[in-house]
Amino acid sequence: MTTVAAYAAPAPKAPLERTTIERRAVGESDVLIDIEFAGICHSDIHQVQDGWRPGTFPMVPGHEIAGVVSEVGSGVTKFAVGDRVGVGCMVDSCRECDNCRAGLEQYCTQGGPTWTYNDTGKDGEPTYGGYSEKVVVDENFVVRIPEGLSLDVAAPLLCAGITTYSPLKHWNAGPGKKVAVVGLGGLGHMGVKIAHALGAEVTVLSQSLRKKDDGLRLGADHYYATGDPATFEELAGTFDLILNTVSAPLDFSAYLGLLRTDGTMVNVGLPEEPVQIVLQSLFGHRRSISSSGIGGIAETQEMLDFCAEHGLGAEIELIRADQINDAYERVQASDVRYRFVIDTSTI
Amino acid sequence: MTTVAAYAAPAPKAPLERTTIERRAVGESDVLIDIEFAGICHSDIHQVQDGWRPGTFPMVPGHEIAGVVSEVGSGVTKFAVGDRVGVGCMVDSCRECDNCRAGLEQYCTQGGPTWTYNDTGKDGEPTYGGYSEKVVVDENFVVRIPEGLSLDVAAPLLCAGITTYSPLKHWNAGPGKKVAVVGLGGLGHMGVKIAHALGAEVTVLSQSLRKKDDGLRLGADHYYATGDPATFEELAGTFDLILNTVSAPLDFSAYLGLLRTDGTMVNVGLPEEPVQIVLQSLFGHRRSISSSGIGGIAETQEMLDFCAEHGLGAEIELIRADQINDAYERVQASDVRYRFVIDTSTI
Repeated sequence: MTTVAAYAAPAPKAPLERTTIERRAVGESDVLIDIEFAGICHSDIHQVQDGWRPGTFPMVPGHEIAGVVSEVGSGVTKFAVGDRVGVGCMVDSCRECDNCRAGLEQYCTQGGPTWTYNDTGKDGEPTYGGYSEKVVVDENFVVRIPEGLSLDVAAPLLCAGITTYSPLKHWNAGPGKKVAVVGLGGLGHMGVKIAHALGAEVTVLSQSLRKKDDGLRLGADHYYATGDPATFEELAGTFDLILNTVSAPLDFSAYLGLLRTDGTMVNVGLPEEPVQIVLQSLFGHRRSISSSGIGGIAETQEMLDFCAEHGLGAEIELIRADQINDAYERVQASDVRYRFVIDTSTI
Repeated sequence: MTTVAAYAAPAPKAPLERTTIERRAVGESDVLIDIEFAGICHSDIHQVQDGWRPGTFPMVPGHEIAGVVSEVGSGVTKFAVGDRVGVGCMVDSCRECDNCRAGLEQYCTQGGPTWTYNDTGKDGEPTYGGYSEKVVVDENFVVRIPEGLSLDVAAPLLCAGITTYSPLKHWNAGPGKKVAVVGLGGLGHMGVKIAHALGAEVTVLSQSLRKKDDGLRLGADHYYATGDPATFEELAGTFDLILNTVSAPLDFSAYLGLLRTDGTMVNVGLPEEPVQIVLQSLFGHRRSISSSGIGGIAETQEMLDFCAEHGLGAEIELIRADQINDAYERVQASDVRYRFVIDTSTI
């Protein structure tokens, strides 16, 4: 056991404060990671606020973790001390079900994976996330951050990157395909970068044109305001794929009308409240609505390699640990371009 | 112009009564069909009752038409007098858009196809359906009914058959796939037959076990009552594809929970009221919800050939034209096994 400093919410909806937590001893297949950067994901805020389900407190959020290996267990084969590595939303799974064997650990059928924080590990202990100095993780849930990707801009890829990369790949975003990204926030800005790098024709659908210059700079070919009803007329039947990164309830029927025949609207934002859609919007053009959660470990590595190859990192605002609570408020006000990343040396 | 006898609803919600209508002169690419049988589809009732949109009255329903060619236009190349043929839900489309060129006339992007009845043809005249003695249709919207399929059991294939065949094929129902068919009515019973013939493992999900013997006889491997909550526990995460043929609103979240990772629930029933689903039921296993409408002309021919090859016709109850109104009441009471077919010689 190692005692490490961390930032935790002591109770639901409480501000985060500095504390210490225990990390388990480095087991045979574990690596100890000295965390350097941790991204702030909107879902951190959801969970601190108990938005999805009653959480376990104190809660140390953080599932966009980048750091350097400082110790390895005796059985570790994939990593060595000094390696630049990342940890995303999960730190374990059953590893035996069909999905785990197929590299879809995020959809583990044995109750789902073990989440990086706000969950309980196989050892019965609570898991704590990346807003901390160090973390111990089984090597099978650690990925390599390629040279050429700075750790600070790589950290958000571990959630925002894979959450957008996986559905873009699954639904074949690429040359000849028209992809709309709804919302230009933490997820959306990575969706634009990745969809563009995959060769798709990318349109941003944002409430206003406020971030239009950014969107075009990040790789979008077109930028429309959803606050303007003409957008929905002009773009009717246009897209092969709509990647919706917005957690707030939308008028789904309106968005579904933007899909071509056989088009899919995939939702990666996870609203606190149930969202309702009108089924009939699907009829007439065999449209689908779906959802996607992060990606498997192998696909996360593939995504990092892809991002390194294409020079894609997140657009970040680096903060000190004592700015976390302010950053939470700014995330909720959509006042971030495009991801807060904590310099964990300031914890 | 030819005057022919027909059964029509003179006004919304009015009982159908015998009348006469005009059929256009046989044009260059037209065939004149002596109708022998016309199926009664639930959507006939929806439209007579103005359930979807204000209809055009008098309305002659019927889009499950089987008969024999009695005259062909000078430019007709595909059919000859005496051929056994069918007409389904559409009688024309723009023929120029991407979808029409791809054999997806049902998803014609130029305002949709011309429906067989309750629509307006390119000549500006109202279209009238199959509850009549004769119909004139462009040969490109006529399909051949193979030898070995009786015309009476073939008629319902033109809607109920293709409406289930098309999504089963599109979502790859076949060996190794587990398919659930929700509802064992006119559509559902064809879904069971076709999914079984395609080689899938077929489960019927019906409100009760009342039709279980029928379901198993038609080709289902399993039969569960959805009125029993244990069904939803036992079958959680089971199906690759759920074909929902029920128009009434369902608890979609419960049904979506029955899908495996990457499974799809495709809805072919078209409810009069908007149906609402809880989006979060999709999350966690990349599930999709979709909808599908009939099939293209080439695929309709493929379906008829498939049904002939596998000896699949609809289970029908043959009625006289003066029984149509009674039949409508029985359809609404789910009191039909499994399709009423009008012997149009009784008109």
